[in-house]
Amino acid sequence: MGLDRKLAARASQQEGHVTDLNRRLVLAERPLGMVDERTVRIEETAVPTPGPGEALARVRYLSIDPTIRTWMDDAPGYLPPIAIGEVIRSGGIAEVIHSDSDRYTPGELLFGMTGWQDYVIANEAFQSLPAGISPTVALGLFGITGMTAYFGLTDVGRVKEGDVVVVSGAAGATGSTVGQIAKLKGAGKVVGIAGGPQKCAWVVEELGFDAAIDYKAGDLPARLRQACPDGIDLYFDNVGGEILDACLAQLAMRGRVVLCGAIASYNDRGELRGPANYRSLIIRRGRMQGFIILDYLDRFPQAQAEMAGWLASGQIKSAEHIVDGLEHSPDALNLLFTGGNTGKVIVRV
Amino acid sequence: MGLDRKLAARASQQEGHVTDLNRRLVLAERPLGMVDERTVRIEETAVPTPGPGEALARVRYLSIDPTIRTWMDDAPGYLPPIAIGEVIRSGGIAEVIHSDSDRYTPGELLFGMTGWQDYVIANEAFQSLPAGISPTVALGLFGITGMTAYFGLTDVGRVKEGDVVVVSGAAGATGSTVGQIAKLKGAGKVVGIAGGPQKCAWVVEELGFDAAIDYKAGDLPARLRQACPDGIDLYFDNVGGEILDACLAQLAMRGRVVLCGAIASYNDRGELRGPANYRSLIIRRGRMQGFIILDYLDRFPQAQAEMAGWLASGQIKSAEHIVDGLEHSPDALNLLFTGGNTGKVIVRV
Repeated sequence: MGLDRKLAARASQQEGHVTDLNRRLVLAERPLGMVDERTVRIEETAVPTPGPGEALARVRYLSIDPTIRTWMDDAPGYLPPIAIGEVIRSGGIAEVIHSDSDRYTPGELLFGMTGWQDYVIANEAFQSLPAGISPTVALGLFGITGMTAYFGLTDVGRVKEGDVVVVSGAAGATGSTVGQIAKLKGAGKVVGIAGGPQKCAWVVEELGFDAAIDYKAGDLPARLRQACPDGIDLYFDNVGGEILDACLAQLAMRGRVVLCGAIASYNDRGELRGPANYRSLIIRRGRMQGFIILDYLDRFPQAQAEMAGWLASGQIKSAEHIVDGLEHSPDALNLLFTGGNTGKVIVRV
Repeated sequence: MGLDRKLAARASQQEGHVTDLNRRLVLAERPLGMVDERTVRIEETAVPTPGPGEALARVRYLSIDPTIRTWMDDAPGYLPPIAIGEVIRSGGIAEVIHSDSDRYTPGELLFGMTGWQDYVIANEAFQSLPAGISPTVALGLFGITGMTAYFGLTDVGRVKEGDVVVVSGAAGATGSTVGQIAKLKGAGKVVGIAGGPQKCAWVVEELGFDAAIDYKAGDLPARLRQACPDGIDLYFDNVGGEILDACLAQLAMRGRVVLCGAIASYNDRGELRGPANYRSLIIRRGRMQGFIILDYLDRFPQAQAEMAGWLASGQIKSAEHIVDGLEHSPDALNLLFTGGNTGKVIVRV
C-alpha cells in the first residue's frame, strides 16, 4: 500500500469510513513447538463490512493466553481447532468505528473474540467494558484470566479458611491472581511456584504470597515438603508435568487439585507423560478436577463485582506485561512458554 | 510337632483349652514383584492368650485383597507398612474359641483384621457377622469388597440414572459387584473391561453387564469408542495403567473417574507411568477422585441393608473364588495380579 493510499485511508477513517486494509495473522501450518513465521503468517485483506445489527471495530488490545496454543493443534478440545488459513482466535478489546446497531456507539470499547487482526465485526457476543475499568484490567483481572483464577479457586477448588494453597505459574497472569485471591479468601498459607529468583521475590514482595519456590533451583519435592510440612490442601495447576507430579506427592488429606492448564506439555512433540503420583489421590482421598471458564460466563458479574471491590480498596494488583504491535503477537504467545513474562501478556495493537 | 502332641492339642481344644501351635505367615523380606516363599515365611508360635475383655478365635476364612500387596511395600499409605517379621495383615472371619468378654460367645463368627494365621485375639474392633449371612458373603458383598463397590459408585462417583458406566477388573471381586450395583442404581449402560473371552462372557451372561471388552484382544481405545460412542460418564478404576489412560481419553462431558486401586502398578519395579490423558479432565470438565473405604465404616449398615435386600431377591450375585489352606495365601494373593481369579478370592484356612 502506497503512502498516498494510506493517507487517504486515514482521512476517510476519520470521517467514519474505512478504506484501510485489515492485517490478519492466520494459521499457515500447525506448529510443532513454538510459533514462528512459518506457522503464523501475516496477510492483508479488505476491511470487513458490518451487516445489519453489527458494528465494525478496530482491535486495540489482544489477550495472549496459553489456550491459544492448544487451538493451533489438530486435536479435540473444548473449541474446534483453528483451521489452516483462519485468523488466530483470541480474546481482545476493540473500539467501535462504525455501527449498524443500537447496541454499539462509535468510540465505545468492547470485549470479544477479536482474533489477531486490525479490524473485527462485533456481533452480539461482544460486550461493553464494565464502567471505569481500563482495557488492560478488563482483559486481566476482569477477563478470562481473573475469572479463571476466581472460579477455579472458589468453585472447583472450594478454597476455605486456613487452606495451604500452592499455585504454579505463580508469576503468570492466572497464577499471580490465584495467589492474591486465595489470601483474600482466607487461605492460611499461599505458596507460589515460579521460575527464577526474581519472579519468586516479586510474588512475595509485590503480591503478598507467603512463600515462593523457584522450581529451576532443583529438588522441588524437598522444597514443597519444607514449605508445606502438613501437606497441600489446594493445588492450582497451571503447568502440568513434573510440577503437578511433585504437588500430588505432597497432597494433604482430602486435598484438591484444580487443573487449569498443562502448559508444560502444550509444545510437546513426543509422548506425553502423565502424573505418576496420581495414586496419592487414593491414599489421601484427593480430588483432581478440570474446568473450562466458558462454563461460568453467566456468573462473571458476581465475581467481577467482588473483584471491583478488591481493586478499589487496593487489595488486589493487576500485573500486566504489554507487548507493542499486532505483528509481535506470535512472540508474545511464545513468552508464555519460555516464562519470559511477569503477569498478564497483552498485545497493544 | 509329633502326632501325640497334635492329638493332645486337639483333645484339649475340644475342651475349650488350646495347646496347639499358631501358624503365622510373616513378612520375611519386602517383595519386588509377586510374593513367594522368600518374602512370606511360615512360622509356628504359641497360641496367644486373650486378656480381660478379649477372646481367642480360630481363623476360618481370609479376605484376599490387592491392598495387602501395598502394605508389604515400605512406602507411605493409608495404613503403615507391615513390618518385617510381622504377620501379614488381612481381613478375615474367625470363630470364637474361648472368651473372656461378655461381647463374644464361643462358636460365634467374627469379622476383623485376623492376619494370615490360625489364631487371633479378638478385641473390640472385631464385629459379629450380620444375621443369616454366610462367612464368604460376609467377606465379599457385605465386606470391604462390596462396600468399596457401593460407596465408590454412589458416594464418590455419584452414579445416576442413565449413566454410561465402565468398570475395569470387571471379573474381579470389586468390579463384578460394581457392575451389578450400577445396573441396580439405574445406569443406562454398564461395560466391563476384563482379561480374556471367558471372563467377558461371564460378566455379561452371569452378572448382567450390557457389554464387556477383552483388553487382551488389543486396541482398547477403539473398542471403548465403539462401546461408549457418547463417552463414559463414570469410570470405576480398579487397575490404573493403560486402561485408566484409555478411559480418560473417552470420558464424557463432566465424566467422573473413581480411583479404587492401581493394581497394574502394585508390582512395578521400574518408574511408574502416570495417565498421560489426564488432560481430558480439563477439556471435559472431569473429576478424578480417590477414596479409602475405611472412611465409610459408620455407613456400612445402611449399605449392607440395601445389599441384603438385593441378595434376598436374587438381584445381586456373590462371585467367590475359594483357595484352600492357610499356607496357600501367598498364591491366592498372586492370583489377583495374574488375573487368575473370577470373583472374590477367599482362603479357607
